[in-house]
Amino acid sequence: MEREDDHSPVSDDEIFAGHEGGKLAVAATRPISRPRDLSVAYTPGVAKVSRAIAEDAALAQRYTWADRLVVVVSDGTAVLGLGDIGASASLPVMEGKSVLFKTFGGLDSIPLVLDTTDVDEIVETLVRLRPSFGAVNLEDISAPRCFELEDKLKAALDCPVMHDDQHGTAIVTLAALRGANLVLGKDIADQRVVISGAGAAGVACARILQEAGIGDVTLLDSKGIVSGRAGLNPVKEQLAGTTNKAGLTGGLADALRGADVFLGLSGATIDESLLGTMADDAIVFALSNPDPEVHPAVAARYAAIVATGRSDFPNQINNVLAFPGVFRGALDAGARAITENMKLAAADAIVAVAQDDLGPDRIVPSPLDPRVAPEVAAAVAKAAVEDGVAG
Amino acid sequence: MEREDDHSPVSDDEIFAGHEGGKLAVAATRPISRPRDLSVAYTPGVAKVSRAIAEDAALAQRYTWADRLVVVVSDGTAVLGLGDIGASASLPVMEGKSVLFKTFGGLDSIPLVLDTTDVDEIVETLVRLRPSFGAVNLEDISAPRCFELEDKLKAALDCPVMHDDQHGTAIVTLAALRGANLVLGKDIADQRVVISGAGAAGVACARILQEAGIGDVTLLDSKGIVSGRAGLNPVKEQLAGTTNKAGLTGGLADALRGADVFLGLSGATIDESLLGTMADDAIVFALSNPDPEVHPAVAARYAAIVATGRSDFPNQINNVLAFPGVFRGALDAGARAITENMKLAAADAIVAVAQDDLGPDRIVPSPLDPRVAPEVAAAVAKAAVEDGVAG
Repeated sequence: MEREDDHSPVSDDEIFAGHEGGKLAVAATRPISRPRDLSVAYTPGVAKVSRAIAEDAALAQRYTWADRLVVVVSDGTAVLGLGDIGASASLPVMEGKSVLFKTFGGLDSIPLVLDTTDVDEIVETLVRLRPSFGAVNLEDISAPRCFELEDKLKAALDCPVMHDDQHGTAIVTLAALRGANLVLGKDIADQRVVISGAGAAGVACARILQEAGIGDVTLLDSKGIVSGRAGLNPVKEQLAGTTNKAGLTGGLADALRGADVFLGLSGATIDESLLGTMADDAIVFALSNPDPEVHPAVAARYAAIVATGRSDFPNQINNVLAFPGVFRGALDAGARAITENMKLAAADAIVAVAQDDLGPDRIVPSPLDPRVAPEVAAAVAKAAVEDGVAG
Repeated sequence: MEREDDHSPVSDDEIFAGHEGGKLAVAATRPISRPRDLSVAYTPGVAKVSRAIAEDAALAQRYTWADRLVVVVSDGTAVLGLGDIGASASLPVMEGKSVLFKTFGGLDSIPLVLDTTDVDEIVETLVRLRPSFGAVNLEDISAPRCFELEDKLKAALDCPVMHDDQHGTAIVTLAALRGANLVLGKDIADQRVVISGAGAAGVACARILQEAGIGDVTLLDSKGIVSGRAGLNPVKEQLAGTTNKAGLTGGLADALRGADVFLGLSGATIDESLLGTMADDAIVFALSNPDPEVHPAVAARYAAIVATGRSDFPNQINNVLAFPGVFRGALDAGARAITENMKLAAADAIVAVAQDDLGPDRIVPSPLDPRVAPEVAAAVAKAAVEDGVAG
C-alpha cells in the first residue's frame, strides 16, 4: 500500500526544498472559463445563494466550504520539541498538518497561527471567526495553558474542537497498548502504566487510559511522581488524586519497579538499567521525538514490545493514525463536539485495522495505511450519533 | 480567449448546483505517499524549517504559504445589493472572490468572515492573525465604516490592504473612462463627472478621478449634491470641499445638466429624460447590479458610450479586471502597502490591454481576458518599487 521508499538519510537540502513556497494551495472546485461560469459562481448568481443562506442559516452547511473546513490553530508556544518559537515559525508544522488532513482525511484545512498567547484572546478570535470554519484542531500550545484553552473553546464553540497533542497522542497510544496486549495476551485492567511527562500528551494519555479501564497509572513530571505533592497545577492535582493506586512516591526508579508499561512523553532519557526492574513481558513506548527516551534496540533487551514515534523503527505511534479520521467522522456526522466515546471508538478502529496483521513489530498500522482514516471516521461518526452530539 | 459560451438564461438550479459543497478546496503542493514524504513534510523534517524561521523571521516568506496568501475578509454588512445579511450568508461571495484570485491572479486565497461588525474588533482579529497571511482584501463592508476600517488596518498591518468595493471599482472605472475618452478623443481634464452614490464605490471613484486629473466631480448621495450641506460624515465632508467646482446645488437633474459623464453607483433608477440634458458625446456608466440605473439600450439614445456591470451587455465594468492583478503585483513586489500610484498604474495597464481592440463597445477588456491580470501585476509591482514600498 506504499510506494517503494528511499531509505537513504533525508538531507537538509531535501527538507528545505520540500517546504519551498509553502506546502498548501487553494483550488477552485469548478473552473471559471466562460462568462456563464462567472455569472454562476460570482455575480449575479451568487446573490441568490447568499440570500438563501440569509433566510435559512442551515443552508451554509450545503452551499459553503465552512462546514467541512478544519482550522489548524497554534500560537507557536510548544512547537514539536522546539518550545516557544512563535506563530510564524510554527506555520510550516501547521501547513504540514493541513496536508495530512487532506491526504488522509480528504478534509480541507487551513492553518491559522496567532500572534497572541493569551488564552482568552485566542478564544475570542476563534469565536469571531466561527462562521468561517467547521472544526478546530489545536496544535503545539504549551501546557497547562492548552487545557484551559481547549476547555474554554469547547464551551464557546458549537463545533468539534480537539487539541491534537493531547488527544491524538492519547488515542493512538491507547490503540497501541491494546494492540500490544492482543499480541501478549494481556488485559489492560491488570496493568500498571508509568507515564513520564505530565504535559499535554501525558495528561491526556493518563485520562484515556483511565477511561479504558487501566489497572493503575503512575504519573511523573520532571520532579517525580505527582501524587502526594503540593503546589501542582489544577490538571496535575486532579490526576494526582485519581492515579497511583499503588501509593508510590519518589522518582522514575521507584515508579518503574514492577511496572507493566512505560510511556515516555517527556524528552528525558532513561537509564536502561531501570527497564530491567519492570515486570515480565514489559511494554515500552518511548515516544519523544526525534530522540526516544531510550533507543528501541536497547529497550528490546528488557521489553517484550517496544514502540517509538519514529518512522525508521517498527511500531510508529503517530498521531496521523487518529486526527484525520477523527475530524472526518465528526464532520461527516455534523457533530457539535468530540466526546470521550468518539475518541475511544477511534482507538478501537485503529486496533481493528491492526488486527489483520498483528505482531510484536506490528501493534499499530503504518501511518500511511489508507484503510485507517475511513475506519476511524466511520467509528467516530457512529459514536457521535450514539452520544447524541450528531447534527 | 474564451470557450464558447451558452447564452441561455442561468437557472436557479444551475446556480445552486454551482455552489453545492462550496467552491474552494485546499491542496497539497507535493504528494505524501511514502514514509520519506512524511519525514520531509512533517516530522522530523519540518522541525528544521521551523527552527530556521525562528532564527531568521524573513525565511517565513520563502518556506510558508503566508506571504502569498490573500485573506478575503468580510463582516457581511453590505453584501452585493443585499445589505447587512451577516457573515455566514456572505461566505459564498467571499469563496467566489477566492476562486477569482486563483483563476486570474494565480494567488492562493481564503475567506475569513467575521461574526462582529465592530471596526476595532475586526482590526484586532486581523492583527492577531497577521503571521497567517500576506495581504487583506476587504469586501462587502458597509459605508462609512469601511473607510475607518481600511484606514485603521493600513496603519496596523505592514502588508497590502485594499477594500475592493472601493478601489477595485475605482480602478476599473478610471480605466473605462480613459478607454471611452480614447474612443471619443476627449481629455479627462475637460470633463465633469456626476457620481450618483457616495458609499464605498462612489467615494473611491471620486478620489481616483481627482487624482487622475478630472475637470470636476459632482457627488450626490440619496439627498442630492453633497457640497454645501451640513451633517455629512467625515468622508463626504472632505469630498464636499474638494469637489463641485461648478458650485451646483440640488438633485440629480441639477447635476446632470451639461455633465460629460454619469457614473451610477447608487442602485436608484434614473429618468431617461435627464440623460438628454447632458453634454454632447455623453458617457454613461450605469454600474448598479443586477439592475443598472438605466437600461443600456435606453441610455444609448442619449450617450455616445454606455457601460454597465453586467456580463450580458457590452463594456462590462467588473472589479475582476483589477483585484487579481493588483494583489499579485503587490505580493510579487513584497509591497508593504498599496499606494495611490499602484492603483493608477493598474488602471493604465487595463487601458493598455483595451487599446489593442478599442471601440465604443470595447472600452475595457473582457473580464475573462487572461492578458489583463499579468499586465496589471507587472505595472503595480513597478509602481510599488517606484513608491519605495516594495520589499
